Amino acid sequence: MDGPLTTLGITRKHLFDLPEGLVYLDGNSLGPLPRAVPEAVARVMQAEWGADLIKGWNLHGWMDQPRRVGDLIAPLIGAPSGSVTMGDTLSIKVHQALSAALSLRPDRRIVLSDSGNFPSDLYMAEGLIAELDRGHQLRIVAPEEIPEAISEDVAAVLLTQVDYRTGRMHDMAEITQIAQAAGAVMIWDLAHSAGAVPVDVTGCAAEFAVGCTYKYLNGGPGAPAFIYARPDLIDTIAPALSGWLGHAAPFAFETTYRPAGGIERLRVGTPPVLQLAALEAALSVWDGVSMAEVRAASIALSERFIAGVEAACPDLRLASPRAPEQRGSQVSFHFEHGYAAMQALIARDVIGDFRAPDIMRFGFTPLYLDEADVDRAVACLAEVLADRLWDNPAYAARSRVT
Amino acid sequence: MDGPLTTLGITRKHLFDLPEGLVYLDGNSLGPLPRAVPEAVARVMQAEWGADLIKGWNLHGWMDQPRRVGDLIAPLIGAPSGSVTMGDTLSIKVHQALSAALSLRPDRRIVLSDSGNFPSDLYMAEGLIAELDRGHQLRIVAPEEIPEAISEDVAAVLLTQVDYRTGRMHDMAEITQIAQAAGAVMIWDLAHSAGAVPVDVTGCAAEFAVGCTYKYLNGGPGAPAFIYARPDLIDTIAPALSGWLGHAAPFAFETTYRPAGGIERLRVGTPPVLQLAALEAALSVWDGVSMAEVRAASIALSERFIAGVEAACPDLRLASPRAPEQRGSQVSFHFEHGYAAMQALIARDVIGDFRAPDIMRFGFTPLYLDEADVDRAVACLAEVLADRLWDNPAYAARSRVT
Repeated sequence: MDGPLTTLGITRKHLFDLPEGLVYLDGNSLGPLPRAVPEAVARVMQAEWGADLIKGWNLHGWMDQPRRVGDLIAPLIGAPSGSVTMGDTLSIKVHQALSAALSLRPDRRIVLSDSGNFPSDLYMAEGLIAELDRGHQLRIVAPEEIPEAISEDVAAVLLTQVDYRTGRMHDMAEITQIAQAAGAVMIWDLAHSAGAVPVDVTGCAAEFAVGCTYKYLNGGPGAPAFIYARPDLIDTIAPALSGWLGHAAPFAFETTYRPAGGIERLRVGTPPVLQLAALEAALSVWDGVSMAEVRAASIALSERFIAGVEAACPDLRLASPRAPEQRGSQVSFHFEHGYAAMQALIARDVIGDFRAPDIMRFGFTPLYLDEADVDRAVACLAEVLADRLWDNPAYAARSRVT
Repeated sequence: MDGPLTTLGITRKHLFDLPEGLVYLDGNSLGPLPRAVPEAVARVMQAEWGADLIKGWNLHGWMDQPRRVGDLIAPLIGAPSGSVTMGDTLSIKVHQALSAALSLRPDRRIVLSDSGNFPSDLYMAEGLIAELDRGHQLRIVAPEEIPEAISEDVAAVLLTQVDYRTGRMHDMAEITQIAQAAGAVMIWDLAHSAGAVPVDVTGCAAEFAVGCTYKYLNGGPGAPAFIYARPDLIDTIAPALSGWLGHAAPFAFETTYRPAGGIERLRVGTPPVLQLAALEAALSVWDGVSMAEVRAASIALSERFIAGVEAACPDLRLASPRAPEQRGSQVSFHFEHGYAAMQALIARDVIGDFRAPDIMRFGFTPLYLDEADVDRAVACLAEVLADRLWDNPAYAARSRVT
């Protein structure tokens, strides 16, 4: 390790309610609690719902939450104001984007994805294809084969930018350009990108982007998802999940669906007001933060971690790309006894996670991590490996959520 | 009015955080805040998410919330334990049920509903039909024409039991029997039934039931929806919204979807943990309550209200069925100046709501309403009408959510 870095002055640890002494390297799975959240949610419960009841919808802007919160996420993914809305789960948003994409390419039958995509995206594509029953096929190739697999029969390319296991990162601009040159619609899942790496949906001109908000955006367990559609395209889409809050006049209670203008048409049902209040408060930690600074700090921390682990833990083998520009904001290592080793590490208050068959994952989130955390994580991991602390029956049994 | 009733001993007003002096007759739109909710949600935020972070999924049973909360709702709708799951919004659950119903009747093309159904159910049916593009048609008839409209070409009958405007209630057993005799699949939307009237999904043998939880179940704004599927049927259904949490082994991260056994396969994405925690706490108010008692008290309160209003407000005309067995737990009146009259009433702390073109709605929820509330509501409404308090420009402008 190379002595103290500054993490470029963006450490905002004081804005998070992190347990004393914990090194939390799992913000790529569930971000920690921002201090602003409990009070904001308590206010919505008591001063809004409790005190104003049904009037809360008008008095406290609950109905506009999806757009308001979408506008907080938009700058983090390079989207203009008014082009992102919130709700449901990421899986539902994948369905919406893919359904729209296939309707834009009615004469094509291939959905192209890769084996590094998160399984739920693949499952949702499978489910939609079976429901449509029009001969679509889900074609899954290795991540590095995507560019050459984009042929003229591909209706939609559905990719998660950053691989949830290895952190390998696709080049959004390059792949979007290849997809569109072949006439395919591009859908990006930004679950491991939003708040993790600079994203420019406008610059790459992708048709759709979706993502979750409980990882790097710290919205809490079950925080709602987001969806972006390219503004020049959105008004041409007939939503398949045509719920009343995507209607042009939901409170006119018309019997026939008329889609709202703009991204509002990708809303479905009643917004999850408490979860959105938590997320809105959580997003306040991004005030004045530039994603370029976050990225620089993330790379500095990750490089420091890799160097430290490779020096101290020869049994671990880097699973992430070595070149930082090819990684998202996580670092993964292969280790045969990875599950037990991670349990031993967690028992020492250094929190990462494990993905089968042998991957130890560590997320780097410069808003609340600094060099001292990285050094402590390296030291603990070195101790776990050197002293074979993983070789303990207490760490062998797998819990349900790993 | 006939002197004090007892409301049969089920008033549990002390379990709700109702503003002093307010008569809340809008629990059919958004239930009030149960006192147990803020502490439960604060605990999940701080002692679970904040303190245990990613470990919360295992330590605090977040992943099992949908089944646990479903098991609290099941007895309120006559469903067995393990047959109800939670998540998403009611609109999404309508899509899931209807998509499954159509796949069970691949040779039929009619979706039958009525003009009293909540618009979002109709919109979701429209969206699904357009997405499938296989010649399905949504046939909408008047509510009283449903029995005769159930013909042998009907794939699915999709009805909301209780009309959101008038409170008119379908006979679930009778219509389900007619539907099934014609070979159609029956889907009940219980948005205005669960917690309002006794429901017996097992007894009527309907294939599917769905509902929301922010009305009579008091789960808070944006509380998640529920879905029930008949246990003998569920394992034959291939879910269209095949998200990872409906997978048989979500944490095996397989690339191919394999549905979980039972109702779990109708889960989609990550559960909304904060909203589910609020709902779980809210459902504690039902401990030891029988729906038969609630129904008897609701009828007593509603009859008292109708008698009082009809005696004092001759300009109002009952929009609900007069026979209590044909109504849900709300009473509606037509009044030409209904919107302004409702605003005047609300300004006097008696809260109902309005539905175009001229309907004043009042919900009766015996867990937190008693005869004194009804008498006060009648007296205020009488004053608003007698003194033409509605004839005030301040009450003319319509707010967005009415």
